Parts: sequence; C-alpha cells; structure tokens
Amino acid sequence: MTGAVLAGGFAYGGDYNPEQWAPEVWRNDVELMNRAGVNLVSVGIFSWARIEPREGEFDFAWLDEVLDLLHAGGVRVDLATATASPPPWLAIAHPEVLPVTAEGVTLSSGSRQAYCPSSPVYRRYAARLVEAIVERYADHPVLELWHINNEYGCHVSHCYCDASAAAFRRWLEAKYTTVDALNDAWGTAFWSQHYDSFDEVLPPRAAPTFRNPTQLLDFDRFSSDELLDCFRMEKAIIRSRSSVPVTTNFMGFFKPADYWAWAQEVDVVSDDSYPDPADPRSPVYAAMQRDLMRSLGGGAPWLLMEQSPGAVNWRERNAAKLPGQMRAWSYQSIARGADGILFFQWRQAVAGAEKFHSGMVPHGGTDTRVFREVEQLGGELRALSTRPGLLGARVPAQVAIVFDWDSWWAVEQEASPARTSYLEEVFSWYAALAAAGVTVDFVRAGGDLTGYRAVVAPTLFVAGDPALEALDRFARDGGTLVVGFLTGVLDPHLHVRTGGYLGPLRDTLGVWIEEFAPPAAPDLAATGGGEPPAVAVRGDVIGGAASAAQWAEYVRAEAAEVEAVFDHGPLSGHPAITRRSHGEGSAWYIATRLDPEPLARLLDAVLTAASVERRPSIAGVELVQRGDVLAAINHSPSPVTLDLPGTDLLTGASATGLELGPQGVALIVE
Amino acid sequence: MTGAVLAGGFAYGGDYNPEQWAPEVWRNDVELMNRAGVNLVSVGIFSWARIEPREGEFDFAWLDEVLDLLHAGGVRVDLATATASPPPWLAIAHPEVLPVTAEGVTLSSGSRQAYCPSSPVYRRYAARLVEAIVERYADHPVLELWHINNEYGCHVSHCYCDASAAAFRRWLEAKYTTVDALNDAWGTAFWSQHYDSFDEVLPPRAAPTFRNPTQLLDFDRFSSDELLDCFRMEKAIIRSRSSVPVTTNFMGFFKPADYWAWAQEVDVVSDDSYPDPADPRSPVYAAMQRDLMRSLGGGAPWLLMEQSPGAVNWRERNAAKLPGQMRAWSYQSIARGADGILFFQWRQAVAGAEKFHSGMVPHGGTDTRVFREVEQLGGELRALSTRPGLLGARVPAQVAIVFDWDSWWAVEQEASPARTSYLEEVFSWYAALAAAGVTVDFVRAGGDLTGYRAVVAPTLFVAGDPALEALDRFARDGGTLVVGFLTGVLDPHLHVRTGGYLGPLRDTLGVWIEEFAPPAAPDLAATGGGEPPAVAVRGDVIGGAASAAQWAEYVRAEAAEVEAVFDHGPLSGHPAITRRSHGEGSAWYIATRLDPEPLARLLDAVLTAASVERRPSIAGVELVQRGDVLAAINHSPSPVTLDLPGTDLLTGASATGLELGPQGVALIVE
Amino acid sequence: MTGAVLAGGFAYGGDYNPEQWAPEVWRNDVELMNRAGVNLVSVGIFSWARIEPREGEFDFAWLDEVLDLLHAGGVRVDLATATASPPPWLAIAHPEVLPVTAEGVTLSSGSRQAYCPSSPVYRRYAARLVEAIVERYADHPVLELWHINNEYGCHVSHCYCDASAAAFRRWLEAKYTTVDALNDAWGTAFWSQHYDSFDEVLPPRAAPTFRNPTQLLDFDRFSSDELLDCFRMEKAIIRSRSSVPVTTNFMGFFKPADYWAWAQEVDVVSDDSYPDPADPRSPVYAAMQRDLMRSLGGGAPWLLMEQSPGAVNWRERNAAKLPGQMRAWSYQSIARGADGILFFQWRQAVAGAEKFHSGMVPHGGTDTRVFREVEQLGGELRALSTRPGLLGARVPAQVAIVFDWDSWWAVEQEASPARTSYLEEVFSWYAALAAAGVTVDFVRAGGDLTGYRAVVAPTLFVAGDPALEALDRFARDGGTLVVGFLTGVLDPHLHVRTGGYLGPLRDTLGVWIEEFAPPAAPDLAATGGGEPPAVAVRGDVIGGAASAAQWAEYVRAEAAEVEAVFDHGPLSGHPAITRRSHGEGSAWYIATRLDPEPLARLLDAVLTAASVERRPSIAGVELVQRGDVLAAINHSPSPVTLDLPGTDLLTGASATGLELGPQGVALIVE
Repeated sequence: MTGAVLAGGFAYGGDYNPEQWAPEVWRNDVELMNRAGVNLVSVGIFSWARIEPREGEFDFAWLDEVLDLLHAGGVRVDLATATASPPPWLAIAHPEVLPVTAEGVTLSSGSRQAYCPSSPVYRRYAARLVEAIVERYADHPVLELWHINNEYGCHVSHCYCDASAAAFRRWLEAKYTTVDALNDAWGTAFWSQHYDSFDEVLPPRAAPTFRNPTQLLDFDRFSSDELLDCFRMEKAIIRSRSSVPVTTNFMGFFKPADYWAWAQEVDVVSDDSYPDPADPRSPVYAAMQRDLMRSLGGGAPWLLMEQSPGAVNWRERNAAKLPGQMRAWSYQSIARGADGILFFQWRQAVAGAEKFHSGMVPHGGTDTRVFREVEQLGGELRALSTRPGLLGARVPAQVAIVFDWDSWWAVEQEASPARTSYLEEVFSWYAALAAAGVTVDFVRAGGDLTGYRAVVAPTLFVAGDPALEALDRFARDGGTLVVGFLTGVLDPHLHVRTGGYLGPLRDTLGVWIEEFAPPAAPDLAATGGGEPPAVAVRGDVIGGAASAAQWAEYVRAEAAEVEAVFDHGPLSGHPAITRRSHGEGSAWYIATRLDPEPLARLLDAVLTAASVERRPSIAGVELVQRGDVLAAINHSPSPVTLDLPGTDLLTGASATGLELGPQGVALIVE
Repeated sequence: MTGAVLAGGFAYGGDYNPEQWAPEVWRNDVELMNRAGVNLVSVGIFSWARIEPREGEFDFAWLDEVLDLLHAGGVRVDLATATASPPPWLAIAHPEVLPVTAEGVTLSSGSRQAYCPSSPVYRRYAARLVEAIVERYADHPVLELWHINNEYGCHVSHCYCDASAAAFRRWLEAKYTTVDALNDAWGTAFWSQHYDSFDEVLPPRAAPTFRNPTQLLDFDRFSSDELLDCFRMEKAIIRSRSSVPVTTNFMGFFKPADYWAWAQEVDVVSDDSYPDPADPRSPVYAAMQRDLMRSLGGGAPWLLMEQSPGAVNWRERNAAKLPGQMRAWSYQSIARGADGILFFQWRQAVAGAEKFHSGMVPHGGTDTRVFREVEQLGGELRALSTRPGLLGARVPAQVAIVFDWDSWWAVEQEASPARTSYLEEVFSWYAALAAAGVTVDFVRAGGDLTGYRAVVAPTLFVAGDPALEALDRFARDGGTLVVGFLTGVLDPHLHVRTGGYLGPLRDTLGVWIEEFAPPAAPDLAATGGGEPPAVAVRGDVIGGAASAAQWAEYVRAEAAEVEAVFDHGPLSGHPAITRRSHGEGSAWYIATRLDPEPLARLLDAVLTAASVERRPSIAGVELVQRGDVLAAINHSPSPVTLDLPGTDLLTGASATGLELGPQGVALIVE
Repeated sequence: MTGAVLAGGFAYGGDYNPEQWAPEVWRNDVELMNRAGVNLVSVGIFSWARIEPREGEFDFAWLDEVLDLLHAGGVRVDLATATASPPPWLAIAHPEVLPVTAEGVTLSSGSRQAYCPSSPVYRRYAARLVEAIVERYADHPVLELWHINNEYGCHVSHCYCDASAAAFRRWLEAKYTTVDALNDAWGTAFWSQHYDSFDEVLPPRAAPTFRNPTQLLDFDRFSSDELLDCFRMEKAIIRSRSSVPVTTNFMGFFKPADYWAWAQEVDVVSDDSYPDPADPRSPVYAAMQRDLMRSLGGGAPWLLMEQSPGAVNWRERNAAKLPGQMRAWSYQSIARGADGILFFQWRQAVAGAEKFHSGMVPHGGTDTRVFREVEQLGGELRALSTRPGLLGARVPAQVAIVFDWDSWWAVEQEASPARTSYLEEVFSWYAALAAAGVTVDFVRAGGDLTGYRAVVAPTLFVAGDPALEALDRFARDGGTLVVGFLTGVLDPHLHVRTGGYLGPLRDTLGVWIEEFAPPAAPDLAATGGGEPPAVAVRGDVIGGAASAAQWAEYVRAEAAEVEAVFDHGPLSGHPAITRRSHGEGSAWYIATRLDPEPLARLLDAVLTAASVERRPSIAGVELVQRGDVLAAINHSPSPVTLDLPGTDLLTGASATGLELGPQGVALIVE
C-alpha cells in the first residue's frame, strides 16, 4: 500500500475509451480535458478486442497515438491491462472459458466479463495480453498507474464449471490437506455427505435442498481468492518490468470479494461508487463506503476511481444528480481520505449498453449543467492541490466497527436463524454513529484496535478465537466494546460454539444466549385475522420503550448489568441490553436491532462513557475532519447556516454565519 | 390486402375442431351452426397429427367428410395449413426442431408450437404438409379463405438454438454485408465486443450482464422476420395452386411481431382478441386493438378471427363475460371496421388444456345464456348483411397515432433511461382521445400522414431521419403535431442523436433535451424515513397543476412557447410542455406522462386548434361512425339515455330518447 | 396397518444421529435419554455414507456399539434403512442417478435426497444396503420398528430424467395397455398431440405453453407411485427376514404423495409436523394434520415421528416455540390419536444445514427451558402409559371431510377455471367445523361413509362415478351431504362431465352449473380508476349478507330449495346455496367460499339438521375426546377457566373452575 499522491495533486479525470471515437474526436478530447482540469484518465479497460482483434495479432498503433496525444496534452494515464472483457473470438475458439451458473447455464459473449476466473485458457490468453501491453508501455512517460482488469467479479463472481470444480478441489486440498479434515470441517456426517476423496467434491451446484453451509462458505472464500489470484498473476507480470504503482477498482461493500485480503495486494486502493441520487440514505451510505476504502488502506489516501457525473443507466429509474450533488459527494470522498476524483466516463457513449450512463462530456455537449460542474470542480481541485494540509492527510477516528466478509457470507446463507441483511445491520450502527458526530474506521476481525476508544462488533456471526480474544482484550484494557446479536455463534468452519454461543466473549460480556427468538415476520399478520403482537424493548438507556421487531433472543445474564429488557409475552423481563464493566473498560451486548432514535440514546451513553469526541450535530450537514480541514457538506434540500470558527478555504468567507445552500460545501480551517 | 367480403356478408363462426369429436357429433354441429347463423368456420388448425399421424402417411378421409358436410350445410371454410403444432413424432425423429430458450432450456413437445421457426427440418416437413393439403383442397368448393399456421410466435417467438444462430447470421450478413458495418452499427467498440467475422456472432443468449442493445434489437427484428418468412413460404405454396385469399391471425398489440411488415403479406387482416371482462379498461383497450387492425390493412375491413363467447382459461381468475358483453364487443369490432365475427371455438372441448375456455356451444349445451347470445348475434348479422352502408364500409379518422415496433422493443430494453411501458404510454394517449370523442388511426413511423388534422407520436424512441422529417413536414404543412417524451433519442442502429436528442424534430419543436430526470420510484419512499417529493407540472393548458410522477427531463426551449413548467426542486420552472407555431400548423412537446384529467385539458386545446371534429361525450358510452352508421355501445353498468338524431337499425326505434341498458348497442342512421 | 403400541407405552424420543458425535458423547446421550424419559429413537436415517463409506465396503462396528448401548440403556430403536440420502460416491460413479428438473437442470450431491426415484442404479444400490442392514440387525433385541427411507419426495418428488421417462412409459403402458387408450384419455386430438406409440411419450418437461392436463395428472400419480414403489422394494427385503413393523414418515398434507395409497402399505402411520409457532392458524392447521394421520390409518393410533422442540431453521423467520407450546401441541397429537411423540432431533447439531434446528438437547445444554420441557413431558407420558383408557384408544367422529389427491393435483393446474388453493378450501371447512366443536375424520373419495352423520366434499374436482354415487347413496340413506363448488367437474381422465357438471350428483343436489363466474382478482382494482365491485351472497341460512369474493357461478336449481342467492350484478338472485331433501337425508350445494362467520351460521343449520353432537365452545380452547379422556388445550395467550365436569388426570384437580394458563393442558375424565 503506497497511497502515493498521483498526477501531482488531487487526481481528476475518468475512464477514457478512445476506441469508441474517431481520431479527430481525440484532439478535441484533450483540449476539453485541459479546460476541465483533468490530469488523469484510465485508458484501455475494454480494449482487448481492439488491441488483439484476432488471436495473437496485436495492434498498438492507435493506442500509441492516444497515449502520445495525452502526454502532449499533460494528461497522465492509468493504463488498463485490458483483460476485463475477452473478445468474442476467445469463446468461439475455446468455449470452455465461458462461465457457468449453479444451474448449469453457460453465460455467453455479447455483454462483458464472459470468462471463468479459474479457466486456465482465459488465464493464458490474459497473461499474454498483459505481457504485450507491459512490454510496449512500461517505459512510456505518460504512465502514472496500472489499472489491472476492472471491477473483478462484478458480474461473474462465482463460476460452477468443471474448471472451477478442479480449482476448488486444489484450493480445498491446500487448505485441508486431508479429506478427513474437510469432512470434519464441513460436518459431512450430517445428511450422508461424507467424501472419500477430494475428487468427489464439487462446487455447490443446484441441489435438491439446502447445500452444505461450510461448502458454501468455502466456495465464497475460494471465489474471492480465485479472482485475487487473477489479479496477482497480472501484477507479477507488471512487476517484472515496471515499478509504477498498481490498482484495481473496488466496488464498495461488494459481497463476493473480501477486500481485506485484496487491499494487501494493491498499491493504491481505488473505488467505484454509485449511490442512488434519489435515495435519501445515499449520503450516509456513501460516507460508509468511503470510510471502508480508507480503512482498507490502513488510513492511506485512496482514489475515487469511478462515479457518475449524473444519472446511471441500470436502475429501474435512473435519477439525475441534483445540481451540486456530484460536487458535494466528491468533497465527501476527499474529506474521508480520497486524493483523487474520477468518473465513468469522460465522453458519454452514443452506442452500446451504457450510452445512457452520464459522461463528463454529455450527449448535450459542453453547454450543459453537467459539464459546467465538471469544469468547476476541476478548477477547485487544482487550486487545493497546491495547499499543504489536505492532500495526502489522514482522517482521525476514535471508534471502529468490525467488518467481516465471513460473517456476511455465512449469516445470509439459506439455513440461518433468520434471513437477515448483514449490511443493514452494519449500516444501522454506522448511521447512528454518523448522526452522533463520530468518524468511524472499519477494522477486520482480529485486526489491531490500538488507539480506539470504542469498538462495535455488529453480528460478528463467524469468528475464530483470536478475533474474539482481541475484542476481549480491548474491553479489559479499558476500551468500550459493543457487541451486537448473532456474534460468536460459529467458528470459522461454521461449527456452533455450544454452551450459550459467544465463545470467549461469554465471559467478557457476562451473558450467554439460551435460544434465538426472532419476532414473527410481518406478513403473518395477514393470517388468522390478527396481527402478531410487536416485540418491544424497554430501558432508561434507550429512553424508555422501543421496537424490537427485527430480532430477539433469550439472554441469560450471569455477570452483567441489565440495561434494558424485552417487553412482550414470554420474553418479557428477559435481558435485551447488558453491560459488564472491566475497570475502565466495559462490554455491552445488544440482543436486538434498535431503531435510529433509541439507538442514538444508547450510543450517547456508550460514547460518553468512552470519552469519544463528537462533532456538533447540524441537521442534514455532514462534518468531517481531514488534516487541518473541517469539511461541511449540506445534503439537505434547504439552506443551512453554519456557526463554526474558522474560514472556508473555497470562498475565503468566515465559517461563522456562513450559509450553505443545498449541496453546498465548505472546507473550514481555523 | 384485399379485405374482400367473405361468406357473402358479415362472416360469423369460429374455430371448428372436428377431430376432437366423433363423426355423429359433426352432423349435430352443422345443424346447430345453421341455427346459430354460422357461415364460416376455421378447420384444421391443430390437425397435423391427425392428417399425418406418422411421418409421410397422410389421412384425409375424415377431413374430406367434414368439409363435404359443411359444404352441404352451407357453411364456408377457412382452411388451416395445420402447421401450427407439429406432432410428437417430429421431435422424436428430429430433436433439433425443438426451440431453445436464451438460458439453453429445450422446450419439449406436449403442449403446442414446439418448433424453432428457423429450423430447416421443421420448414421442410411443414412445406410437405402444406403441399399435400393444398393439393387436396385447393379446388374444394367449400373453401373461402386459407388460414396459414396460427398465432405465429404466440409461445415461441424467439429461439436461441444453433439453427437460429445460423439463420441470424445469414440475416445479419444480408443486412450489413460486411462485419465492419455490423461492428459500427452495434457499437462493439464498447465492452470489447468486436466481431472478426459473422461466424462469431450469436443470438443474445444468457450473458453475465446487459447484452448489446443493437444485437437485441436486431434479434427482435430477425425473430419477427423469421416467423414472417415461415408465413411467406406457406403462402407461396398456396399461391402456386390457389387464388383464394390467405390470412394468418394476428394477436393485437403483440410485441414479438412487427405487424406493419406482416400486414403487407396477408390478403385479409384477422385478429384474435381476448380482453379481460373483469378489467374496467377493457372496452377502451379493445377499441385500440380494433383500430390497429383496421390501420394495419390501410383502412380495409378485417376479421375478428377469435374471441371468446364467455370466459377464457388462462388467467389467474377467468371472469365470465357479462350478459350482452360478447355482443357489445362484437359490435365494437364491426363499428371499427370488422366484416366478420368469429370465436374460439365452436364447441367447448371436454379434454385438453383449453377445456375451460368457453365455446359457442358450451359444456352446458344450448339451454344456456351463452348459446342464446350466439344465436341472437348470428341472426342480427345475417340481417345486417343485406343492408348496404355498413358491410365493407370505411371508418373515418382525423387523428393518427404513430405506432412503432422498433421503439417498443428498444425502450423496454434493460439498459434504458427508465423502465417504461411503451404500450401504457400509447394507451394513455389513445384513451384520452377516445374520451374526447375522437376516432384514431394508427400509422407506422414514416407512414403517409395525408388527411390527418393532428398526429401524436408518443415515445418514438427509435427513428430514422425520414420518419422524423415526415413529422416535421406534417407540422410545417399545417398539421398539429404532438410529440411525447423520449422521441428521436436513437437512430435505427440505436446510436444516440447527440446535441439534445430529437434529431430533425429539434427545429420542428424549438426545444432540445439537456438531461433526463425521471422521478424516484415510489418504493424509495420506504427508505430514509421520508417520501421522495412528487414531481409536478403546472400550466393553464392542463388546467393548473398535475402529477408528473412517471417522467421528467430538462427541456431547453430555444424557439418554443412554454405552455407548462415542472414544479419541483431543481426542475422547477423548467419547461414541461411547449408549443411552436408553424403558420397554420404547430408542434407540441410533452416532457412527461399526464394523468387522464390534465391530459384531457391539454387535448382539448390541441384538438380545438387542429379543428378536429368530436363526437358528443356520454359517460360509459362508446360512439363510432362507420359508413352511414353511428354505433352507440353502453359499456357502463347502468342504463343510459341517448339523445341523438336518427333511428336504431337494430330495433327501428328513434335514437332520441333511446335507452340503452348495460352492454346495450344501437346502430343509428339518420 | 397394525398401529400397535410401541416401546411399551407412549413412545417418546426422536431422531438420533450418533455419527455426528464422538463415542464419548453416546454414553452421555443414553444417560440423558433416561433422564428425559426417552424410550424410542430413530437411528441411521442419514447413515448411508457412514455405513458404506465407499462402494461395497460396509462398516457396522460403530452402529453395533450404538445399538448395544441403547439396548443396555433401555431405549428401543426405530432403525432406518439409511437409503434417504446416497453418499457422493454414488453420483460420482453413476451420474445418471441424479435427479433432473423439468427445465433440464441436474441436481447435484451436496445437500440430501440427490437421487431419481426411478433410477435402476439407485434402486440396486439401495436394495443392497437394505439387505446388509436387515441381515445384520433383523434379530437385534433393541429393534422396535423399521424406518424405511425418510420423508419420501420431500425435495425430489418429480424427476424428469431419461430413466424417469422410461419408467413413466412403463407405468402408462400398464395403465392404458394401448397407446390409443392413452390418446383418448389425454385428449391428444387437441393441439396435435397424438402419440403413435408409447415410445414417443415424455414426462411433462418444460414446454412452450400449458402442458397436457392429463399428462400432468398422470405424471403426478406416477411420481407418487414411483416413490411408493421404492418403499415397497425396501419393505419386501425387510419382510423376507423380519416381522418387526415398518413405517415411513409422512409429512402431513404433502401434495406429491397420495397418502391414501401409501397408508395401505405401512404398519404404523407416522408423521412429521412443523407448524409455524408464529402463525396464529397453526393450532387448527396442526389439528387438521393430526386428524388426517388418524384417518389414513383407519382410526388406528399413529406416531408423531418428528416435531421440533423449539425453532426450525428453514423459515424466513424461525420463531421459537412459546413456553409450553411444544407440550400443548404434543397433547393435541395424543388427543387426536397419536401413541407416540418424537422429535427431530435428539441432540442439536453443531454443523451442517440443520444446526439451527432445535434439538431436545439444545446448544445451550440441559439448563434450558427446552430441555426442562422435554423432561417434563417425558415424565408425564411415562405416567400416562400405565393408565388404561387413553393409550391405544380411538377418537370418535360423526363428520367426515372427503380429501382427494387427484382433485388437489388437478384443480391447481395451470389451465383451471381459476387459480385456487385446494388446501385453503379444505381448511376453511375444517376450521369452521373445529370452531363448531366437531371432531372430523377424513375419508378418501369413494371411501366408506358408514356411521357418519354428515359428510363434506369440498372441491371434489376430479371424481369417478363410484365416488359420486357413494355420496349420493349417503344422502339418500339419511345422511347430510355438503358439496362444495367445483365438484364433479371432471372424470378421472380429466374429461369434462358435460350437461352441467356434477355427474351423478346433479340429481342428488337438484342443481346443475351453467357457467363459472369467478369474481375479479383484487389487483384489477388498481386499473381503470375503480374497484371491481364485490360479489356477495345473501340468505337467512348464513345470517344475512356475506362476501363471495373467491368464487361464484351460475347455478341452475332444478329440484332444490334455494337457501341463499348471489347478490351482485348479473349474478343477483341466482342460487348460491341450495338444499335438496331426501327423506331424512339432505344434500347441500355451496357455490362459493364463505368467510368464517357466515360459514359458522351455515354449519349450525347443517349440523343441527344432521343431529351432530358438538362440544362446548370456549374461545381459544381446543376440546377433543379420545377414549375416556376429554383433552382441553388452551392455545390462546390468556388464561381460561374451564367449567366442565370431571377431573384433570395430569393434576388431579377438578375440571370445574380449573384455570388453564396459556398453552395449558388438562386431560379430563369423568
């Protein structure tokens, strides 16, 4: 992880696909890029077919010309390895490269990403392509960054073909060594699933009913690893000739790829982010995604590799961004650690599946609000680049949330205690902390917790002892630990931690769980003529009574104080929220999902006890500190008047009495 | 297109499937047909297996007997070519005739229509069958009409098998000549989809994500053409021996078949129509379908080839028709240009998948309301046949709606600006015009607009320059042109018309479109605690304020008067409805979908300016002029008193003060 | 059918899967079983892979030890044949054993039940396994019952592979002898489906549209028979060496298996029952299931083979059982004829797909509510076993409901008069009778009706003449017959009974049906701006007016009294409920589905006329008589005070003034 400053300041630009345009347009592109302040473009992402129009014949002349033009125009290049979408000829010659679904459906060429990540044929052709590109451009002076593949796994994250089956077996053999160990881990004594050799093991293809949970989880792990292996193969080829940093664009909270592992392999974390402009939760959800990106890189600056200047093209309704919204969300990224803002794509396409995805240069040309906003932001970032204190600076955080792909994969499996959304649960904590004026880091399970005052572990469903012991130590060393329901239920093989679940945390928390008791799903209300009565929770720490409609369980408090109890039917009076003190530290257990208001009350108590510093709360306004700058962003539809000390870098105005219109931004320094 | 009078007057009858019944029933059938006034029946539609029970062995004896019986009974025959449903033996001998879905699922025998339209094997066997039938019956005196195949594409409109792939490639090569031209048209530079030869091209089979839009559209065009090619093959065989007119039954607004092309090939347009009796929109929707049929034939009389006497069998709930409803809807067809009323089917089946589809002779026999209504209508049509002025007459219309299959196919693709229903948009205009007392023709894009006072082009999403220029000329020549949103966005290759969309219409309308801004989908209201605020539109021309919940966009008025503006958030004050005058003519642009009431207000202004004549408006009553007859049909559940000049042909009563009960009909002449 | 008392009293226990646990746990298991009063466990259900870890190698040592341990501990064994889930090696060696869906998707190993029931390979291996097990354990003294396979058809009830196709053809040939007879029965004259030989016939695989209804029904019958054939094969092997009774566990109202046929083959009926604790309809639905089980065995005692001690793991939300609910539902089973209560499973698993399914020994151990309730019930049942009068006793019933799998299969086919739920219709009658204080038997169509005072035939859609004649005789012999809509519509080949449907019942009832007229589906209310007006029914016998939103039809009363009429639009005044007297007997026809309240009124009239005895009605309390015991079970959330003569066996308290808390149970003897 280098997180190095790219393009000499805040990077600014987007995906550039010159193969879609005639060469006369290229010259106009460079002129407009200069006008818009663009200093970095990603080139070649979907160029395999143009570079190698038939097997083994390479055509680089057009790309030479493009790169030379950009270089002459002062625009730096994030050069793609072009392996993201094989040309049709590959699948015609080698149909076995095509991905296959769990139901046995082969996915054809004609869209993008039509390859099995485990296919040795795909990998051989991809490697040859990367070698040719690296050989040709490793020394080109325009080169700033290598862009390996693109959005790995976006459409094909899991492949069930025979090549994948063979690769899965190799992966399993490397992990378990003996088939007996696999049988133990997978619990194949159940349902007569015993394997006599690795040769009998398959991917979790369509089956009569629930497939083996550990097989499913291992297949998720394998699938993430297999894509990462493709990345590593390309990176190794690059490294053999070039020391320019490499990246591949992440996609935020993307379930199929465990980015904690991936982030170890990239030099710069970069992210694609497409929140729905019409969704009122988008500003907070986007903030959460930015904080993940910063956290993946250990706090190092990262790149917003793709966002849309306006609407996208793949939603049911593709809302346009509001005036100023693109700029506001760009500054949100910068405030949360980004050192560059890029878009998909430079010039809006006129053909193909993404022609209705907005571009920096829209269909309507430059006399458009979108282009004007692109120009404005480019100018501002150029000015900010010369100022020390923001570019390259860190974002301080006193609270961490544990985020864990294993738990995400496992808790959303088909035979869980209840169908629950891991991301919704994490979001409910993140949103409440954001509303409380707290910046959050994400940490991996078992990661370093040094320096945090409070740590939240929501639904850490799958966890090894070391991860749970790290949380235990944190609480005993004076930290404030908050543990959400369905934590520590399973070990990494998905075996139950018997005796009340929680494993080592049972003692940390002073509770154990006798039984899960999720409330009835609302649609049952329709049957039998009545409504299933709502489960509630009650306690001073949440300000009285609150709903517990999402989750409930029988908690047995052994050595904890009961801060709130359930309040319905047989659960009445049983603990719902508990706290155990460990000297300076303490450990909370929350046995339900709270709505925003009671959760805010609870957090108020937790954060106060943990001495976490909070920013003032201004309705609709996001406040984040990065380096010496306090960013203020108004996400609300109404103007807001700030009353903060300092001066706005963007306007030079005083932040005391400063009015921010809707989507307005101030960068305040004291 | 002949549209000739068939069966010597108004044709009346239905599908007749004697192979389902013992010969003793046949005699009773002919008697009952005479009693019911039946003069035309469709025979042999599903008789392939009976005619050719095993490969190459033909059995015509039973059919000889049936046709002779009908002839003796004075019932004319619409003789089918029997190719609609191959017998099981064909697929057993040649499994490659079976159709295959995009996901690779082979569809088996055991229902109907189990063949790939592109299969050379199917076509060979079908041709042999048609030859045998034509050879035997071309000179039979009972013959009135040839019925080619049946409901082409009803269940299998798109086939993705290898034979279809080969046929698609031939079709593409004929269209594009070179693969470079195909690459340009399809925009394969995007997503690395370049084809090096036609041999690499496939149907749009299941793929990782959005398939190439132009590939999809060309496959829609190909699939319609390929079915039409089957039709043409059969017609050529018939023409080699017989000059009796041919038809094939259309299915109203049937997305997979571009009936503008098909209508060129049939001698008589015929239609199958099954509106839901329980759906309050059915009378207007059915009227729209009848007007399409008339328009397909250039105004020539057409046949209602299939409707149900009562309930159908394939809905979630198969509502019975109300007393009189079958008769009312039959007269609606006649009033809108039909010269014949036929049913599926004569005698209700006792076995098979359609036994619960009603028949003219129901399960309950002749002492039933259904049979009595069948008898009554037959008698009335016989009487009307002898009267000049209605049979064979034309239906005048001063307003036309442009209807375009390319636009339908393209705007409902998966990567459009918003998921929208083309048919809903067209229907909203049709229903408003009907409510305003206006009869409408449909015209194809680029079709002749001579004689119309007003033309509406709703969402003409895909259009070549000639089609747009024809609209432009219409407005400049004094016509009133109304253009709906999402018009002229793409050319026929689905390339964007840059510079504000609309192409040649930009100048006609005096506006260009900077950006689409569809309102948020309602389900987003559930997130974030609030509702996305409703987008509205405001202007005198629509009578104040109205909802614009379906669509909005940033319209830039260059040379148009703004008649209404959007009224929410950043769209506020931007044009929503504009008008540009061109001497006598004018061109309106409507940037949203209006609800019925504001649309009625808008149409009132438009129609008044265009001097379009309107019939009086009587709630629940449909009024249509055909020839010298003004048909009045009461679709409402309450009696209505007419106050019109003239006399009702059916009863001889004066139309002034004439009460029409629910489902009542009057045919008024002055 | 023996229904013999097992394990020397009330059987008590559950599925025991020792292969999931280390041998040291086995000893603890036996101790805990003794503590809990367990006297019968099912062993080996999923043990194929453990018994035969590779082809042809059998390992019985572990099972010897387990059985010996259990025997030593006094626990009897229901020994499984272990054929329910083949090990992975079988499908690796013989991929053709895997089941295939109608769409052609092969279902893989890795879950359970991955075999085609018609596969000769599967059957050969299964037979060899059963032979080995029987050979080894036929004489083991611990053996109480043979458990053949497990939940036949639960996940794979219909297989469409080539082996299934071949078996289906053999089944058809045995049924029809000639292909002409099949063509007649299936009505293949329709849609050109004529078969020239049995070799052309296929299972109803995915097809372009509605498949042949009789083919579908025959395939349902075949699929049930084919599974039963597997059962018979295993039973024959057992019988060649052992006279210990056999069972296989049913699954209540399980659509794919016609349990009337199955029940002839088992010695003891046993059932798996998993009502949703969160569904307020569960107590009545469960009662209905228990009554079916008793009826399947002709009134003989049956076994509750599986229920859950607490939550299951496969629902959207897996609700915990309320305190006491497991016990209350167990007594419900006993009161309705069960002589044993068993659970899935003894010790809650820690791995695999069902680890979150509760166990008698939960994850939390024995200091848990669940284990305490298990212990309590075990103790009570042990005490009750020694008392004559309940164990082995019969449950009297004066009312029977006709339940028919053919009708279930046929009426829910895709081309029916309306999509309707057969089970919902039956449940509406069952629930109303239960609310009226009446115990119900189920009888098969054509079954013996001797001794019943009233018989209800809800939607007996498919029926042969003998079945309808049996109902006719019942009414003419003085019984009260109640016939629901859509009865007698089709004969067993699914040919329509023309002339008003109902066949022989037309005279019994004195009515015929002219036309079905189902009310519009509610979602049509959204179209056209209005609501489709509700169809109603009106008559003193139902206490005035009531909704008829589910069904309506045109009934022609020839010789019946009209007790209620429809009351909407054209149906107004037409008969909805009719009654014809036959001396002492009478025959009612109900042409709609009534809501609970009007149905209660109607039943009051029917039951009074039929002199059916009724138990008192106490809100929320179930009362059932078995032997000399009147069971009272409080399913409501509130305490209830009984005012009944007699004494509670469980507490010795008087039943007069006895308070039952929520989930409370009293077993009252006079």
